[in-house]
Amino acid sequence: MTGDGREAERTARAALTRVIEPGDEHGGRWLREFGAVELWRRLRSAAAGPEALSGASRQRIGGYRLRAATADPDRDLTAAEGAGGRFICPGDEEWPSQLDDLGDAGPLGLWVRGPSHLRIWALRSVAVVGARACTAYGAHMAASLSSGLAERGWVVVSGAAFGIDGAAHRGALAAGGATIAVLACGVDTVYPRGHTELIGRIAEQGLLVSELPPGDHPTRSRFILRNRVIAALTRGTVVVEAEYRSGSLATARHALKLGRFTMGVPGPVTSGLSAGVHELLRGEGVLVTDAAEVVELVGGIGDLAPVRSGPLLARDLLDPVAARVLEALPGRGAAEGRDIAREAGTTADEALARLYELHSLGFVERRSAGWQLVSGATQTADARRGGA
Amino acid sequence: MTGDGREAERTARAALTRVIEPGDEHGGRWLREFGAVELWRRLRSAAAGPEALSGASRQRIGGYRLRAATADPDRDLTAAEGAGGRFICPGDEEWPSQLDDLGDAGPLGLWVRGPSHLRIWALRSVAVVGARACTAYGAHMAASLSSGLAERGWVVVSGAAFGIDGAAHRGALAAGGATIAVLACGVDTVYPRGHTELIGRIAEQGLLVSELPPGDHPTRSRFILRNRVIAALTRGTVVVEAEYRSGSLATARHALKLGRFTMGVPGPVTSGLSAGVHELLRGEGVLVTDAAEVVELVGGIGDLAPVRSGPLLARDLLDPVAARVLEALPGRGAAEGRDIAREAGTTADEALARLYELHSLGFVERRSAGWQLVSGATQTADARRGGA
Repeated sequence: MTGDGREAERTARAALTRVIEPGDEHGGRWLREFGAVELWRRLRSAAAGPEALSGASRQRIGGYRLRAATADPDRDLTAAEGAGGRFICPGDEEWPSQLDDLGDAGPLGLWVRGPSHLRIWALRSVAVVGARACTAYGAHMAASLSSGLAERGWVVVSGAAFGIDGAAHRGALAAGGATIAVLACGVDTVYPRGHTELIGRIAEQGLLVSELPPGDHPTRSRFILRNRVIAALTRGTVVVEAEYRSGSLATARHALKLGRFTMGVPGPVTSGLSAGVHELLRGEGVLVTDAAEVVELVGGIGDLAPVRSGPLLARDLLDPVAARVLEALPGRGAAEGRDIAREAGTTADEALARLYELHSLGFVERRSAGWQLVSGATQTADARRGGA
Repeated sequence: MTGDGREAERTARAALTRVIEPGDEHGGRWLREFGAVELWRRLRSAAAGPEALSGASRQRIGGYRLRAATADPDRDLTAAEGAGGRFICPGDEEWPSQLDDLGDAGPLGLWVRGPSHLRIWALRSVAVVGARACTAYGAHMAASLSSGLAERGWVVVSGAAFGIDGAAHRGALAAGGATIAVLACGVDTVYPRGHTELIGRIAEQGLLVSELPPGDHPTRSRFILRNRVIAALTRGTVVVEAEYRSGSLATARHALKLGRFTMGVPGPVTSGLSAGVHELLRGEGVLVTDAAEVVELVGGIGDLAPVRSGPLLARDLLDPVAARVLEALPGRGAAEGRDIAREAGTTADEALARLYELHSLGFVERRSAGWQLVSGATQTADARRGGA
């Protein structure tokens, strides 16, 4: 595809995120049949009759046309950019291709806000989800699990909701770790309001991700459909506390269906908030009690990315800031993030984002003392590239 | 075997329980090679050299001879009878043949005290075991699980220890249910002293069982070896609270090795007393949260006894008291235990013991309102017998 073609595709997909609701398989099928540009043209044009779209009832098409008439992708793309965001699509270098496992129900594109590289972060990510009205025990477990995951170089993904989600994000941030919030509203929109500061911190130090365009608000069905993105994006999902028939269990079921690892943290049988988790653990879910057990499970089997030995990229294919951060690591032993940032001439947040990318790519390891080079990693990658 | 032969066998086995420690595979092998009477004769006789016993070191045999010299089976059998007990051996009608799964490490015989029929009770029994120093949560779970099992007509087996064991026995008794304590001391010996009243109640309403002769005291290794009898006797074992490397986990491991169902009740990850259970549940143990889930698991697959349709015995093969209790049940609907006892002219404890036997044999069912006849059970059994 030409550069212009890619831009037209991006604009059309951005427009379609305002027209087609998350998880709408009809919309997804039409997108696959016609391509984004042609589908967008047909929905905007009075000329092309709805009969051209297979499976389209007059009423359904009418709803899409109404939304398409007011959609303004250029305005949305500008708004996102203004909020420090971007819109990424399938085929982009940053696109996490594991989302394609969702088929026609997959996202049309993702609105992203934050300094890090979504695809690379998602390679080593685990979802930690659970009840909004959690207990102190649940909040403690979510936070300590997420801190432990962050300390092991894993990215914690959750939904920025009250309760378990918030504790998970905070646990990762408290350990100086990486976290992604998948929202059921625009990435420039704060929901819940009580998490304004937390969501702001995630936008600065982590990533906000949404299928919905700037300014869009959450609805009940958007919350539920958001869960499939969390499940698909990550290597596995840990449910910390959940009642029967809860949204967190829906995420777990998505994860199972997608072949991701599905885990649960047990609790007192006398707590209704553990009942859903225990139900999961009586089925295919795996009982976990700490971050080491989670990593043992999700880290044991090949990456979602193609399996390779050594780093995933040759060193000189890294982006300039990542390359500078890699240069800033000492030849021996570990250094702390802030020292690496100073040496590389970046902010601490920027350095952290790149360090997690470099970790996912196999260049660096996280140690309790900080970050250090994986021995032989850069040589191996360069040698392999040289030999190819 | 003739009547005299059986009595000589019983006397020899009773004697050997004072000579050979529980779980001693050397002793078990010799017993298999020589038979109880001949082994007892050799250990008592100075004439038969130890070289006749394969694998016998001079020192080992010396120890057995010392014990044999002072053993007095007639005195032990009389003492047991005086305490309302009996001694049962393989081949006896009351012998639970699933204990043969223990091979050469199996019990030589069992000292039993209580009004019920061990083999029949054990057909529908589940072990509920766990930590001595349990939490209030653990005690609550053990008691409610055991009450629920008793209400469903299942016999609760445990070790009469403080903590989970005691809560399990009490839960079964509180529900008017059946319970068996497997002791690591003589059935006329109370250990722990703080459970004097509980053990007394079990002797009256349930069963006390031990490999050890009257008057013998528990030792550390006897506690541990007692666990294999609990595991082998029952359809499955539920561990309620257990630390890493605890005796309760040893019971669970025995149960797994013997192909019995092995279950665990989850608890807070923050409790060290749930750590052992969670370890079990991360392996082959099944997570259970109530009695219904336990029964669903252990009741789903065929009895340890041969599978038959309808009752296991023809009605006129029942012992006279059981037959009277069966007669005392109303033709329609349920009756309470004490009314059945009055009608049958027995004590309430006696009636309860027989009702559980009749339940295991398929004649009666337990309902919340009391006990009722299984519809068509007696006719079927009589008809089948008549047709044979």
